Amino acid sequence: MKLGLNLSFAVKRFLEPEKLAHMCRHDFGTDHVQFTWDLIDPWWPEELRDVLAIRYKEAFAEEGVHIDATFGGLASYSYAHLLAPAKEQREAAFLFFKRAIDLTAVMGAKVMGTPVGGMSYDDARCPARREERYKEMLGYVRRLASYGKEKGLEEIHIEATPLITEFPHSPEVSVKMMKDLEGTDIPVKLLVDWGHALYEPLLKEEADIKLWFDTCAPYIGSIHLQQTDGQWDRHWDFTKEGIVTPELIRRTTAGAGLEDVMQYLEVVTIFEDDDDAVYDGMKKTMDYLHRELD
Amino acid sequence: MKLGLNLSFAVKRFLEPEKLAHMCRHDFGTDHVQFTWDLIDPWWPEELRDVLAIRYKEAFAEEGVHIDATFGGLASYSYAHLLAPAKEQREAAFLFFKRAIDLTAVMGAKVMGTPVGGMSYDDARCPARREERYKEMLGYVRRLASYGKEKGLEEIHIEATPLITEFPHSPEVSVKMMKDLEGTDIPVKLLVDWGHALYEPLLKEEADIKLWFDTCAPYIGSIHLQQTDGQWDRHWDFTKEGIVTPELIRRTTAGAGLEDVMQYLEVVTIFEDDDDAVYDGMKKTMDYLHRELD
Repeated sequence: MKLGLNLSFAVKRFLEPEKLAHMCRHDFGTDHVQFTWDLIDPWWPEELRDVLAIRYKEAFAEEGVHIDATFGGLASYSYAHLLAPAKEQREAAFLFFKRAIDLTAVMGAKVMGTPVGGMSYDDARCPARREERYKEMLGYVRRLASYGKEKGLEEIHIEATPLITEFPHSPEVSVKMMKDLEGTDIPVKLLVDWGHALYEPLLKEEADIKLWFDTCAPYIGSIHLQQTDGQWDRHWDFTKEGIVTPELIRRTTAGAGLEDVMQYLEVVTIFEDDDDAVYDGMKKTMDYLHRELD
Repeated sequence: MKLGLNLSFAVKRFLEPEKLAHMCRHDFGTDHVQFTWDLIDPWWPEELRDVLAIRYKEAFAEEGVHIDATFGGLASYSYAHLLAPAKEQREAAFLFFKRAIDLTAVMGAKVMGTPVGGMSYDDARCPARREERYKEMLGYVRRLASYGKEKGLEEIHIEATPLITEFPHSPEVSVKMMKDLEGTDIPVKLLVDWGHALYEPLLKEEADIKLWFDTCAPYIGSIHLQQTDGQWDRHWDFTKEGIVTPELIRRTTAGAGLEDVMQYLEVVTIFEDDDDAVYDGMKKTMDYLHRELD
């Protein structure tokens, strides 16, 4: 399988582009990263935002590390975005994702990826309003694909999440959504996250990575790798005890013919965790994953 | 003591303003709330943002609930803001906080509050650069106080956090920072969060709420209440087992003469937690706190 690295681990810790790029290349042995909007907020005014984006772009290029994609992180995931109950918030989300496409283009990356948002308690429990939110969201994603094409992007990746109030959240809903998005101006693909796919409280017997990979394989554009216990969406590094094993990764990836799809380790740390402990966990994890999976 | 409610519990769940206001007033018995930027991002274009802000303002007014303040939430806390290593990011943060003041004014609230940001690994460990980041941050906060005055705000509240890479993070550093900010155009006060103040891994013997309250009392503008175990910044509701007891709240609040300072319960939930379980925990918690503290 192909091991890449999402930069979430660096948020509020390793913020100097040159040093982060050097760390990714030399300490973690990676040459493919997914940039996170937790490092650069797409909302920042372009004249400030793009200076930073170009600094990251050049620092990573200097180390020979490809920024494959920019991706929504924790900050962005805090909002209801394209599934919000208020029209004004959905419109703001559309502008936000357009700005994320602009950021992606400035960084020279080819993929913009994100979850699409979440419904309110009331909308999620009303079948008619669920359908309305779903349909309108599809329309927004189609327009984002058109805008992405205009800006030179190649794909949009939509992340499946472990919430019944969000789309998509199961193998079946993922396939339906990908089919409903056929024919967009650039392809819209699916991102499967190991920890979301194995989240038992929601998915029950569907918390089965083989089921997810086999069912969704034709649509999967990238994968988030994490250690988890299946009880919460942990985003642990692999120094923690969990249910994701190298054997399972190898077997299910190969079984579904996904060897060429990049799997980005996405570790989300607790803010108050110690910087050195975070680095140490990342170093041990990347060494372990390279040894077991390369 | 005075019990209020921060709206973080509602993020991505209870998003209809009228319903949320009704819930706060009638189910949770509160008439003072702190609005969170996780419900409205200050970055959203004003023509969309302010429509939503006014909808919340009117819905809460209708129920007789005061929106005392707007406050930074999880999304905002993901960024390094005024302590970032890059000048461009600090400038973006200044614009962001100005926009948060605009949002506060539109909602008719009188206080804007937030942590100020976080340093990178490298800056935090270099005494000269720490000092430089600290000094520059003070300058930005002074300018925000001037802007806040212009917009009709009465106070800015700076939240102490449980990270050595942030300012302020201890009773002593909090007092120093408040003294360094004397003479601003509107007062800059301190927000003490129970879970941050009791965070043992950083604070050791200073993880003592009595020490925090007694030391910082003259500067405290508001308080975040949460249940915690002192091992992480939990932001639990009070159905969980923890070290914060009604007796401790009553005794330390009265002991420091802080009975008139509002303590906003700030529960931050796990995204994939069930909406009904979140509501149930909040209802039980608010019933319990009213019974024990009113």
